[in-house]
Amino acid sequence: MITLHHCVSARSFRPLWALEEIGVPYELKMLPFPPRVFARGFKDVNPLGTIPALTDDADDALFMTESSAICQYLAARYSPGALDVAPHEADFGRYLNFVHFGEATLTFPQTLVLRYAHLEPPERLQPQIVEDYARWFHARLRTLAPLLDAQPYLCAGRFTAADISVGYALMLAELLGQSAHFAPSIAEYWRRLREREGFVRALEAQEAAALAQGVSTTASPLLRP
Amino acid sequence: MITLHHCVSARSFRPLWALEEIGVPYELKMLPFPPRVFARGFKDVNPLGTIPALTDDADDALFMTESSAICQYLAARYSPGALDVAPHEADFGRYLNFVHFGEATLTFPQTLVLRYAHLEPPERLQPQIVEDYARWFHARLRTLAPLLDAQPYLCAGRFTAADISVGYALMLAELLGQSAHFAPSIAEYWRRLREREGFVRALEAQEAAALAQGVSTTASPLLRP
Repeated sequence: MITLHHCVSARSFRPLWALEEIGVPYELKMLPFPPRVFARGFKDVNPLGTIPALTDDADDALFMTESSAICQYLAARYSPGALDVAPHEADFGRYLNFVHFGEATLTFPQTLVLRYAHLEPPERLQPQIVEDYARWFHARLRTLAPLLDAQPYLCAGRFTAADISVGYALMLAELLGQSAHFAPSIAEYWRRLREREGFVRALEAQEAAALAQGVSTTASPLLRP
Repeated sequence: MITLHHCVSARSFRPLWALEEIGVPYELKMLPFPPRVFARGFKDVNPLGTIPALTDDADDALFMTESSAICQYLAARYSPGALDVAPHEADFGRYLNFVHFGEATLTFPQTLVLRYAHLEPPERLQPQIVEDYARWFHARLRTLAPLLDAQPYLCAGRFTAADISVGYALMLAELLGQSAHFAPSIAEYWRRLREREGFVRALEAQEAAALAQGVSTTASPLLRP
């Protein structure tokens, strides 16, 4: 059995989306955001205090905490030839690069915008940091526009875990009010991703689980705009 | 032929170290740091303006920019059963998690310390950010101490690309003057990594290439303490 600890529309949406794309059964445990403040007992599950936290009992009680690594793991274990791109495929290197790019290059700057524009108390807000990293994000994102003008997905001629990694960065940008700056081919790509059945099911799953478990169903506690 | 664009002791040290561990031939092109300021023509090679930039002509002119993804790629292509951990191995998921953890969780906070303690002009330095993310780094790093008390490497019972990903975060911490705060088992692990022949050869290779190409041979331009 796979168990995923998740906060509404936070990074752990990546593995949730992957699970729904693949169709593998899982249990979803919802937490308020950020868990290190509002769910202190969670440290017993994940000493980092971060989400996602995923366990896979079918795999020697595997425990994982990195959202893009989890997508890559789920793809390789449960979706070979579909969400996964294998070492023997021509686009293997490009796939790995995009899986990492989505998190390390595109999501990291946005977490700074989130923290220093929304989460910190007023006296610790940092407009300079917010401006520095909003600019960083858009400069990095723009480099994808020519590629997405030419093809519907990032690599391998199909939707893969790399699109989930990058797609979540676009979702977070929209939640942070930055999607109006997307280049046309990136806005179109983001529309294509949002319309996928797996994406829609993941949204529905987090809403149903949040309701059932008494956690707020909107991303607003995450963002407090 | 593999070509790696690299700045002394920057993130691109990860793929350089992997190449030396594996023993695959490569060409090393040195750049001053940061290249987006001191090597503007580099944008023609990598529109992101970041290092590393790696091309592998043996693989359909593959072009990669994410340091930990490159290590994973090189391991899978050129070092199966050694630096790589394959999907059929028990520690595959743990391996992926550590490869991502080294960059997304451990290196990202340090880039903020680097930028806002050293690289920005005096009026844009940000002591609060430096303190926030130095604390973040050490809190995350500390979670590895129990594991490294019990085993010499992160996973799979051997040195892998995951150790390169995490090991570079320790190298950067030392360059930033933070290694005195390492827990004993982490300090010991870092010593073990530094003594590896592949690591020593990578240091020698960057020094020789920097001298030959007229680029400063120390990491000090990177850090300007």
